[in-house]
Amino acid sequence: MANKLVYITRKEHFNAAHKLYNPKWTKEENDAIFGKCANENWHGHNFDLFVTVKGNPNPDTGFIMDLKKLRDIINEYVVEALDHKNINLDVPFMSGKMASIENLAIAIWEQIEPHLANCKLHRVKLWETHNNYVEYFGEEN
Amino acid sequence: MANKLVYITRKEHFNAAHKLYNPKWTKEENDAIFGKCANENWHGHNFDLFVTVKGNPNPDTGFIMDLKKLRDIINEYVVEALDHKNINLDVPFMSGKMASIENLAIAIWEQIEPHLANCKLHRVKLWETHNNYVEYFGEEN
Amino acid sequence: MANKLVYITRKEHFNAAHKLYNPKWTKEENDAIFGKCANENWHGHNFDLFVTVKGNPNPDTGFIMDLKKLRDIINEYVVEALDHKNINLDVPFMSGKMASIENLAIAIWEQIEPHLANCKLHRVKLWETHNNYVEYFGEEN
Amino acid sequence: MANKLVYITRKEHFNAAHKLYNPKWTKEENDAIFGKCANENWHGHNFDLFVTVKGNPNPDTGFIMDLKKLRDIINEYVVEALDHKNINLDVPFMSGKMASIENLAIAIWEQIEPHLANCKLHRVKLWETHNNYVEYFGEEN
Amino acid sequence: MANKLVYITRKEHFNAAHKLYNPKWTKEENDAIFGKCANENWHGHNFDLFVTVKGNPNPDTGFIMDLKKLRDIINEYVVEALDHKNINLDVPFMSGKMASIENLAIAIWEQIEPHLANCKLHRVKLWETHNNYVEYFGEEN
Amino acid sequence: MANKLVYITRKEHFNAAHKLYNPKWTKEENDAIFGKCANENWHGHNFDLFVTVKGNPNPDTGFIMDLKKLRDIINEYVVEALDHKNINLDVPFMSGKMASIENLAIAIWEQIEPHLANCKLHRVKLWETHNNYVEYFGEEN
Repeated sequence: MANKLVYITRKEHFNAAHKLYNPKWTKEENDAIFGKCANENWHGHNFDLFVTVKGNPNPDTGFIMDLKKLRDIINEYVVEALDHKNINLDVPFMSGKMASIENLAIAIWEQIEPHLANCKLHRVKLWETHNNYVEYFGEEN
Repeated sequence: MANKLVYITRKEHFNAAHKLYNPKWTKEENDAIFGKCANENWHGHNFDLFVTVKGNPNPDTGFIMDLKKLRDIINEYVVEALDHKNINLDVPFMSGKMASIENLAIAIWEQIEPHLANCKLHRVKLWETHNNYVEYFGEEN
Repeated sequence: MANKLVYITRKEHFNAAHKLYNPKWTKEENDAIFGKCANENWHGHNFDLFVTVKGNPNPDTGFIMDLKKLRDIINEYVVEALDHKNINLDVPFMSGKMASIENLAIAIWEQIEPHLANCKLHRVKLWETHNNYVEYFGEEN
Repeated sequence: MANKLVYITRKEHFNAAHKLYNPKWTKEENDAIFGKCANENWHGHNFDLFVTVKGNPNPDTGFIMDLKKLRDIINEYVVEALDHKNINLDVPFMSGKMASIENLAIAIWEQIEPHLANCKLHRVKLWETHNNYVEYFGEEN
Repeated sequence: MANKLVYITRKEHFNAAHKLYNPKWTKEENDAIFGKCANENWHGHNFDLFVTVKGNPNPDTGFIMDLKKLRDIINEYVVEALDHKNINLDVPFMSGKMASIENLAIAIWEQIEPHLANCKLHRVKLWETHNNYVEYFGEEN
Repeated sequence: MANKLVYITRKEHFNAAHKLYNPKWTKEENDAIFGKCANENWHGHNFDLFVTVKGNPNPDTGFIMDLKKLRDIINEYVVEALDHKNINLDVPFMSGKMASIENLAIAIWEQIEPHLANCKLHRVKLWETHNNYVEYFGEEN
């Protein structure tokens, strides 16, 4: 028997510092590529994180997943590591990677995905400023 | 000849009370599963509802569908039934179902879909709080 | 020596059910005055609460008040009592009062004001829907 | 070797006037179809434009595309032409078309798409008011 | 006996076209002063209007004023005249005035103030874009 | 002859890193007072800045002040110094001060106020996160 497929999204947020700086390049090359984002003394953002999972509503609860459980997973594996931190210096799962939001969204997916049961991770969406955000759906090409 | 496929979304809202409570379970079981959402005297939300339809722009109007018509369908079949109501007690199309937003989104899809002509329902998106929303695309799995 | 006077605001939120219903009146009178808000089975809202205090920045901290302390006062004395509750039935400090947002804002002021030290309560601002909010500054006339 | 596919979105905005009016019809027919939107002296909006591209993060930058470059493309080919303009009268790429947001979103896609390299245009999303927006993904049917 | 003074705000909105153009000046002078806002073919905005009144809560209703009544006054005397209109050409109460938001806020105050009873108009706040708004409190200096 | 007094507000924004850390105290004392905000490797925010001036509309322009001029003053004297910077290390006008938003709002007032002519600075409002903001009106007590 077919079941309805529903998507549910939980929003969390964190504040963090970072800079865009490739250590293989000179300061001048970094400034040319990254502009103000390369400021050696860092800058920072309020990041809004939306995590979407999909699944079938449980007949007894009406839930595809308990949102309190999803909130706890996001906080334990992602927000704890990032909130009021320096993404380049303080975050083990970003170590050795460029601190772009593209790479951060992929890393957040990888932190959350192993902890989900009975429903599937669909999307990680990450706002960096009012004017830009990235999305990652676990796709490869 | 191929036609451009465009998606258009209309936002409406309603305020309602509900509780998450499974009558097959004891009060203690309900509290354990649903936490504060099981409060027997109800709680409530401002719900934001986004309804998306898709189709080809009509050459004479530039519209895939008259948004005033879409607004009227949403209001007549959904908002009238839900606004300033108790979802568990007052809403015929939620009778006998758990009052979760997952189930509510599916029921809203079923209210709207039969009334559309010339374009197809694509998505029902329903915000319950600033921190969570559900989406239903009419998919089964 | 004069000191700079700064205002700082903390936002919290809660979800609650209520109805507008005066027990001295008939159902018909209540419907005539309060319209949909008198629905006997309740309705509800996501309330956004902004609490503003004013004072002089402390030279050692730069703070007029530790916002974590303000957050804790708001949560202990206001949000605990209101979140996922029925304002008419479940909230001691609203007992015997009409459950309007005007009266709710005054009651919230009275819950918070006794717990502040070294800075003064300036304003309680309470959003009920996207389209309306009340403010109370502790003024009488 | 498979690569991660990431989507990134840039928001820009413009303010413009327009009216919905089909010159093949009488004023009465236009009023009947378009209502207030047919006002002969125009009306206007603050348009929010979200442009999404997709691609693989570059290992050296972490970027799928330099957002400053995307911002510049949007501004040069779209915002310059539309901001503080009359969509019906002043915008070459809307000439001879109904000034609906459906048609405007398609035209914006066509302005941006030829200027992208190394990543693909995924979506143009255009908000006209707080209550409605259109999306175009370059699809035909 | 002293009474609590409470402020309540209602939000409405309208979409309109306008231009900033002083007919006493040449086109070149207008362009120099008003820049893009002087575009002769108009531009437009989604205007968000917040109207605040103040008064004492009525013991029987908890209201300082019935918000439905305030909504109706704003719509009858302000939104009807401005929504989907050209502020320079279509709005009697802006006739002969520069169509700036400063002048528009003052004119809106003057439209609403005579129709209030039992509470006082406190503020008209008018957002023109995401980045600017004006406020008028009925003050003179 | 009396003139109408109108307030106009311009919004700008900047992204910056900071930490709350008093060098007179030990690391343990700083952690006890400032919690996560004392992280030695910094954190950061998207700051939204609203600057309000007041004055009388000029009969020829309808303006109390050209908003483009206000925008330029804010950008030249405030945003240039703060955007993509470290508030503790990079900003001359915050040198030697605790990097709290209270102190930052006062410093922003002092940067802008000397550059205004024909209208008066009324308020600096600075959002640090979705949940808190400060306001400074130039008041002393």
